[in-house]
Amino acid sequence: MNQRIEKLQSWMKENDIHVSFVTSSENVFYLSGYYTDPHERLLALAVFQEEEPFLVCPEMEIYNAKNAGWQHEIIGFNDIVNPWDMIVNAIKKRGITVGKAAIEKEHMNVERYEQLTELFPNAAFISAEEKLRLLRMIKDAEELKAIEEACALADYAVQFGASEIKEGKTELDVLNALEYALKQKGVTEMSFSTMVLTGANAASPHGNPGMTRIKKGDFILFDLGVIVDRYCSDITRTVAYGDINDKQKEIYDTVLKAQLAALEASKPGVTAAEVDLTARRIIGDAGYGEYFPHRLGHGLGISIHEYPSIKETNQLVLQEGMVYTIEPGIYVPGVAGVRIEDDVYITADGARALTKFPKELQIIK
Amino acid sequence: MNQRIEKLQSWMKENDIHVSFVTSSENVFYLSGYYTDPHERLLALAVFQEEEPFLVCPEMEIYNAKNAGWQHEIIGFNDIVNPWDMIVNAIKKRGITVGKAAIEKEHMNVERYEQLTELFPNAAFISAEEKLRLLRMIKDAEELKAIEEACALADYAVQFGASEIKEGKTELDVLNALEYALKQKGVTEMSFSTMVLTGANAASPHGNPGMTRIKKGDFILFDLGVIVDRYCSDITRTVAYGDINDKQKEIYDTVLKAQLAALEASKPGVTAAEVDLTARRIIGDAGYGEYFPHRLGHGLGISIHEYPSIKETNQLVLQEGMVYTIEPGIYVPGVAGVRIEDDVYITADGARALTKFPKELQIIK
Repeated sequence: MNQRIEKLQSWMKENDIHVSFVTSSENVFYLSGYYTDPHERLLALAVFQEEEPFLVCPEMEIYNAKNAGWQHEIIGFNDIVNPWDMIVNAIKKRGITVGKAAIEKEHMNVERYEQLTELFPNAAFISAEEKLRLLRMIKDAEELKAIEEACALADYAVQFGASEIKEGKTELDVLNALEYALKQKGVTEMSFSTMVLTGANAASPHGNPGMTRIKKGDFILFDLGVIVDRYCSDITRTVAYGDINDKQKEIYDTVLKAQLAALEASKPGVTAAEVDLTARRIIGDAGYGEYFPHRLGHGLGISIHEYPSIKETNQLVLQEGMVYTIEPGIYVPGVAGVRIEDDVYITADGARALTKFPKELQIIK
Repeated sequence: MNQRIEKLQSWMKENDIHVSFVTSSENVFYLSGYYTDPHERLLALAVFQEEEPFLVCPEMEIYNAKNAGWQHEIIGFNDIVNPWDMIVNAIKKRGITVGKAAIEKEHMNVERYEQLTELFPNAAFISAEEKLRLLRMIKDAEELKAIEEACALADYAVQFGASEIKEGKTELDVLNALEYALKQKGVTEMSFSTMVLTGANAASPHGNPGMTRIKKGDFILFDLGVIVDRYCSDITRTVAYGDINDKQKEIYDTVLKAQLAALEASKPGVTAAEVDLTARRIIGDAGYGEYFPHRLGHGLGISIHEYPSIKETNQLVLQEGMVYTIEPGIYVPGVAGVRIEDDVYITADGARALTKFPKELQIIK
């Protein structure tokens, strides 16, 4: 059994859970190594305290699942058979009576849940999601490697995007060019919709790239991420086009100072709240507190937003192996919007930035 | 009240349903004109038999909802308040006791369902999805217009892609170039992952575009769609690069004959099964039955796959206003893969193809 499933099994034993029925593509991938988007079809991984786990997937996917390294039972179904009957039989065959089951309550829909409660009318259903989030929060070497590769491509994208900046080009011109360059490098999926924002548009934390044209004296903000081996990266850099004024410079310097301080504060034993507040105090002291309206960062991995959340109310203690973003920003309407974001990995005694594009102000001439 | 909500209300009256609680982005958009992807946040539209409906959305989205034309009550919530309390109050305020509620059982997750059943412990919950699918199946003039625009852009994409075909280019080269051209035209979202397949790769109904290089004597299959005003298009064309052999020609001609016959057979009063079988018989008679492994087509609109399903077991009778694909294909491993797909609109006395790129074999020299 792989270590991830073993950790889930330990939790199941501690909590008297007879079966975990995992159904989201992300968690099935995390536990089995096999990823698929089953659309409306059923995908599930059943894990037991001791007995062999089994995977349920469309029949035509069995080969892919084996190929991805899944060595245990696979229940393949086609459009004619009822996968639920096969699931009930597979559980019976293991001699298990389901008194308590863990499911993904935020993922499973009501239709499936009604089928499940009908098949196991005496079972109590609890949520497996919090446990899976905590497991996924600590990355192993293989996961870190994928994230590092995704970060290197994100760095490349920002560098390429910055090289495309020119008077009169639109945000979409630069965005399309950098995504095209990534595709030429074999990238097939971004972590989220790429942002290239300039001028007034960059001064909103939720702007959308459009036909705004780049002009001298403006900031251009890049926020993007790449998926490698199903792991996400997420970088933000803000560069200047031509000379900027003192106010813009002050905003940039404040964000950078906050970002570096939060990176410095990140290490095992410190709380997520403390890291957020380290940056927040610096921005507040500079008089921009009200213009930093979002949390400092979020964990990332198979999902672009996962644990830990780096916010001032989260007392979670940081541990080696966590990966999260540090992304303070200041958005002053009509003046400037600046955000600087790294993905960081918590080591035994500090934090290492995985995104490496320079953070000192880059002025494109 | 708009007509779509009125139709839902008629159904609710017939079935003694006190509230329909619609939660998917697609169905909220269909009924309210307002589209958002709320991610993990709640989005809901509550419709009653007589009383004013209300929309529930994140507070910062209220402006967008009004701007999209929603003129009834909006309940905005932020991260501090509990939206469920506000929902219960809004229902109480209307003097309604919920004995029977319709929800989207395939969309709503178990966590939300448990909150809802706790708030309305005496209510029976039935599914609203089938009714909404049937409503969405018949398109009005505004919907048709959006689909027609999406189809025109899909035509353009195939034409542009065909013009990019050249010895030695990869599938991804052509795919990236055509998507880039669409972005220059303002397209921001495709209906699904674009397919450009050639050679052996095209001879699988589920190939993925990659680094396969185009060479003379091969087919190149394009399958793509564009989203305009939230409505999808979906086109497939197969073009030849240089001279092809007699077997390839025979396969192409058979698919084209089947496609044209199914288009001719499409009209009000005919069943979906009959349309599928019209094409299937032609392909079977030509000896290629086993190489046409999928249904003839699917409805499309806000979703890329919706009602009606054009398959041999569907006895649904076609009506004016339906939009669906006609996409027969023959995939002979090692020989050739050909699919030809139009989006069609059912008129009072026949069908009109909305996709217009030529279907006679195009030979790129």
